[in-house]
Amino acid sequence: MKVGVVGASGYVGGELVRLLLQHPKVELTVATSKRHEGEYLFRVHPGLRGISDMRFAGYDAEKVKSAADVVFTALPHGESTRFVPELAEGGLRVIDMSADFRLKDAEAYKTWYGYTHPATELLDRFVYAIPELNRDRIRQTRLAASPGCMAITTILAIAPLLMDHSLGLDAEHVVVDVKVGSSGSGGKPSTSTHFSERFGVVRPYKATGHRHSAEIEQALAEFSGTNTRISMSAHAVNMVRGILSTCHLFVDEVPESVALWKAYRKAYEGSFFVRLVRDKEGPFRLPDPKMLVGSNFCDVGFELETRTLRIVALGATDNLMKGAAGNAVQTMNLMCGFEESEGLRYAPLHPV
Amino acid sequence: MKVGVVGASGYVGGELVRLLLQHPKVELTVATSKRHEGEYLFRVHPGLRGISDMRFAGYDAEKVKSAADVVFTALPHGESTRFVPELAEGGLRVIDMSADFRLKDAEAYKTWYGYTHPATELLDRFVYAIPELNRDRIRQTRLAASPGCMAITTILAIAPLLMDHSLGLDAEHVVVDVKVGSSGSGGKPSTSTHFSERFGVVRPYKATGHRHSAEIEQALAEFSGTNTRISMSAHAVNMVRGILSTCHLFVDEVPESVALWKAYRKAYEGSFFVRLVRDKEGPFRLPDPKMLVGSNFCDVGFELETRTLRIVALGATDNLMKGAAGNAVQTMNLMCGFEESEGLRYAPLHPV
Amino acid sequence: MKVGVVGASGYVGGELVRLLLQHPKVELTVATSKRHEGEYLFRVHPGLRGISDMRFAGYDAEKVKSAADVVFTALPHGESTRFVPELAEGGLRVIDMSADFRLKDAEAYKTWYGYTHPATELLDRFVYAIPELNRDRIRQTRLAASPGCMAITTILAIAPLLMDHSLGLDAEHVVVDVKVGSSGSGGKPSTSTHFSERFGVVRPYKATGHRHSAEIEQALAEFSGTNTRISMSAHAVNMVRGILSTCHLFVDEVPESVALWKAYRKAYEGSFFVRLVRDKEGPFRLPDPKMLVGSNFCDVGFELETRTLRIVALGATDNLMKGAAGNAVQTMNLMCGFEESEGLRYAPLHPV
Amino acid sequence: MKVGVVGASGYVGGELVRLLLQHPKVELTVATSKRHEGEYLFRVHPGLRGISDMRFAGYDAEKVKSAADVVFTALPHGESTRFVPELAEGGLRVIDMSADFRLKDAEAYKTWYGYTHPATELLDRFVYAIPELNRDRIRQTRLAASPGCMAITTILAIAPLLMDHSLGLDAEHVVVDVKVGSSGSGGKPSTSTHFSERFGVVRPYKATGHRHSAEIEQALAEFSGTNTRISMSAHAVNMVRGILSTCHLFVDEVPESVALWKAYRKAYEGSFFVRLVRDKEGPFRLPDPKMLVGSNFCDVGFELETRTLRIVALGATDNLMKGAAGNAVQTMNLMCGFEESEGLRYAPLHPV
Repeated sequence: MKVGVVGASGYVGGELVRLLLQHPKVELTVATSKRHEGEYLFRVHPGLRGISDMRFAGYDAEKVKSAADVVFTALPHGESTRFVPELAEGGLRVIDMSADFRLKDAEAYKTWYGYTHPATELLDRFVYAIPELNRDRIRQTRLAASPGCMAITTILAIAPLLMDHSLGLDAEHVVVDVKVGSSGSGGKPSTSTHFSERFGVVRPYKATGHRHSAEIEQALAEFSGTNTRISMSAHAVNMVRGILSTCHLFVDEVPESVALWKAYRKAYEGSFFVRLVRDKEGPFRLPDPKMLVGSNFCDVGFELETRTLRIVALGATDNLMKGAAGNAVQTMNLMCGFEESEGLRYAPLHPV
Repeated sequence: MKVGVVGASGYVGGELVRLLLQHPKVELTVATSKRHEGEYLFRVHPGLRGISDMRFAGYDAEKVKSAADVVFTALPHGESTRFVPELAEGGLRVIDMSADFRLKDAEAYKTWYGYTHPATELLDRFVYAIPELNRDRIRQTRLAASPGCMAITTILAIAPLLMDHSLGLDAEHVVVDVKVGSSGSGGKPSTSTHFSERFGVVRPYKATGHRHSAEIEQALAEFSGTNTRISMSAHAVNMVRGILSTCHLFVDEVPESVALWKAYRKAYEGSFFVRLVRDKEGPFRLPDPKMLVGSNFCDVGFELETRTLRIVALGATDNLMKGAAGNAVQTMNLMCGFEESEGLRYAPLHPV
Repeated sequence: MKVGVVGASGYVGGELVRLLLQHPKVELTVATSKRHEGEYLFRVHPGLRGISDMRFAGYDAEKVKSAADVVFTALPHGESTRFVPELAEGGLRVIDMSADFRLKDAEAYKTWYGYTHPATELLDRFVYAIPELNRDRIRQTRLAASPGCMAITTILAIAPLLMDHSLGLDAEHVVVDVKVGSSGSGGKPSTSTHFSERFGVVRPYKATGHRHSAEIEQALAEFSGTNTRISMSAHAVNMVRGILSTCHLFVDEVPESVALWKAYRKAYEGSFFVRLVRDKEGPFRLPDPKMLVGSNFCDVGFELETRTLRIVALGATDNLMKGAAGNAVQTMNLMCGFEESEGLRYAPLHPV
Repeated sequence: MKVGVVGASGYVGGELVRLLLQHPKVELTVATSKRHEGEYLFRVHPGLRGISDMRFAGYDAEKVKSAADVVFTALPHGESTRFVPELAEGGLRVIDMSADFRLKDAEAYKTWYGYTHPATELLDRFVYAIPELNRDRIRQTRLAASPGCMAITTILAIAPLLMDHSLGLDAEHVVVDVKVGSSGSGGKPSTSTHFSERFGVVRPYKATGHRHSAEIEQALAEFSGTNTRISMSAHAVNMVRGILSTCHLFVDEVPESVALWKAYRKAYEGSFFVRLVRDKEGPFRLPDPKMLVGSNFCDVGFELETRTLRIVALGATDNLMKGAAGNAVQTMNLMCGFEESEGLRYAPLHPV
């Protein structure tokens, strides 16, 4: 199977390239970058030195179509809408990494992203792809929207609890407090991302109004049948890779621990990439992105607090892997009929 | 004024020593450590090399009483109850850094700390000292309990909002999501704190049941007259100093921003060490412990989210300064009639 | 091929387990740990959760011999001598990760490690294994000593220059200034490795007398025919994985850059895991361990300074990979007749 | 005494402002920035919030002269030559932070900095200011050039050894291997300093040709009477503040340790800001910039290696303090007749 990456110079694009070059079932035939056209990939993605002598191509829709059966578009929000339609028309399988095809409601793009969507007819054809939750739909689609990194981490942490209506979660006080590494915000330098200013921060860079709220609410409604109001705040912390999503959920009566186990097991039975992490002791008791570096796992876990009628549900990922490129390759595997974990069974590095 | 530190070998003890050695109105006459008796302080606290040739003394109540007018006790929880009573009897001013005299309800020590309090008669005589909120009571006491680092950071962030009853905060869904550096957990090595295991974590080490919940609830009731239920989770992040407390508060109707400004200004008018941080742009818009290293400031700020009926209130401190030793010295200044900010007006280091 | 790891609970042992579990040609049949006997491996090596349900075995020479064709011994220096002889007798292939079989001169163990070697008859049978430099000998041995992490990084950086006698390097002023992450010193907690004390250091923890000097000098003599005097200093820096070895070499006349290129190319032609890194511009111009995380590459590069008659030769590795476990698996591949890079062709993670 | 800072928006300028605002003998009357004219200083230097409501002024020579008796110029290399002459003419005391007046040989500016010096007549009037080494000359000058951060750290580490001619140091093989935090390279964002690319590096960003070589050689010649050839390499490591300079020196015969003690003591007797650090054990045995954060100390220490005929001399500083702003304020204190350590006696923060 031939695959291409449109927009291969960013961090997500680079991670896609890394995974696809090492994937046993596919051949990476084209990787585009307007800015770096003609340069070796390894000048931008130094990990690829010695691995590949490929160069960035400029973008040319016809060439991409003829070179690839599956295309990943890893472009800034608002840019994907310019490239995806012509690729999708040609019958290619497209997996879009941006937010441009995640939301079903065309109006929502104005509200959350500030633009009028120019290709609304495609919105319904895109599957919002979280293999653990809608594996079958992904198998049947040719167009997939890969979720935002904080969105997928949060959804995997709490969807099973919302899907189990017997838990009676309070849908109006769902607090999602996210801690994220720097790579999620891309490779563009600025004062905010300048090392001396970014090192050591716990910066509440998006305390309210985070755009991923929209796709989380949409997905939870789709997967659980429950409308929730997501109260999300995102913090930049002192690391490059990783997300921890701490979800504070309220109930009228705190359930037995076993009930939550069941909900998670039911949802993730047979899902290799979701691990339930809830040990009694030790430093690795609960999800922590440190334990996931380089892997496609999403760790989920929980604690219960009777006094406050609260469930704390936790999700952790490597934001470039299960939070982005890894999930997209997993999606491709399903779309192409490969084994779901093909090319993705990396154990996390530890310690790192 | 002569001062002493009992339990001077830990991080809080070391920070007290650093501040007191540089304080213009006091003389540090004794610093005790059972384990390091006879050693130079600078062998344990390397910052003091060249600053002081003092040595750790063993503990001897009589000697401490004769050497000092004010004593700081920086001992593990449960240990302070063994030392404080005899010091307090002698008429010394005592500022205790542990949790042993923070809670007023003797029963609460069983619930939260697992021990029966042996000196309950002292509990009422201790003032839970947050100068910005009970300056006058501190001026009149001889016995003060300095708050926990996460507690003071959280209380300063939200007390003004609870004190303003017109805001109508929902007291049952107060989520306090704390991110903290390593120094708050002390200097004792373990696998959890081993560098290779601790570096790069976002570890939810106390997702539920955090003991500071108790003193936060007690203090908020005292200062605001409102009983709240604090839903607290604490996370270890990749830094040594600093706390960010992200508080998610719900209301029936989101107020104007100006109403919150007023609440904070009213509470902190004239309080040098609380800064309201809420800029329109730039990397320093909201509280972040990176901007506080080495200073006694507590930065507070907020954002509003109409869609979720939510106020996000943020507090940040250097946990060893305003979160511990700095607040204690500020407390001493009030107890001794010094200018409140004496010996504490350090500008934060930046960048660091 | 069945393989075992004796001493599998440390960081090197854990990395061996991770690599061997994912290696297509071998089956990991036994992993021992005295301290953790009976526990799941993933309790100690959290990356393995979901990957393997194996448990640590206690050590039993007979069981190990019957379970495995190749054994990796990852034990503390001085311990390997107690286990290796009986394993070696049985005809097993043994790859020892400690220093116990690296040096040929039995006396050197007294000088550098402070013990009398109890199995000197084995010393000559062990090959000091750096596949890029003695591939053929490794193919023919059943006993291999895997080099120290700083040693291999340094040797790969400078051996080609010493092997080219026409460069006329001054063998008496070879300064090797090493910067290393925390994982190289293992998983045992202490004050020195306590996060609050270890974070942010540039600690010259072994400014003189570093034991790896001995094996570097021995290897350089063996591979280049030149006796050198290695002036080595090692510094702990603020990261978990990685080594940079900065080697300052002096010459009577600074050669053309092309002469050095040739020396490196000659030495490493066909060696997949050594990359020559010497770009004209950009942040990735020269070797840096950041660009190697998770990979088995050793990056080497150099700069010339005419004014000081100096060559600066640089080597970088991931200390747990090419610096330890990765090199050992590469060695196993050769010893067992597998493709040299089998199970090791991981691209580095970037950014991380 | 009224003081001003020209170029106050960079990291060195910000540190000067922080120190001067807290200095008991001076009043900061003007702080200029072309780019930030009119803005509050605390928008750029967030540590100053609550400390000062000063705003950046635009540059106007007359205004600066009338506002200040002492001016610090903290401008990029090559810029200072445009501003300093007119300030110097007016009789102001000027302390320049750039390299523009450090070198005595006008030709050297072409060689090392690539420009023709436009004000060579001033070069002799500037004192290259290291108070510990030329205190008396500083007291008598009105014009001072503050050394480069790596230069002063290195000079303080090795000058005493070169000054003691009986040690017989080999002046042609002096290797200076420097590890430095990010703040030394300023606040301008770029790909190299982008957090995701800069985090976790050990980047040999200037392996040869470092400009500070020139001023180190000049200073060592001046202070010790010995011409040395400095073989310098600089590495960026994973921290914001701090420099460690590891100096490898060769001798024909390794001296007794006590001889080196004497050399250092002789040189630094009575110098508060140089600490000799050489303990027998513990994590704080030798200089490490971690132990210096926020202080004006320079720690120096050494080890001896008989086998390699080598002295390893170590110097460590907080690069913004003793490496830049702190040393400049110390210089001002001498020039103005204040106590040398006035406004600078901060104990380092630890841990941090």
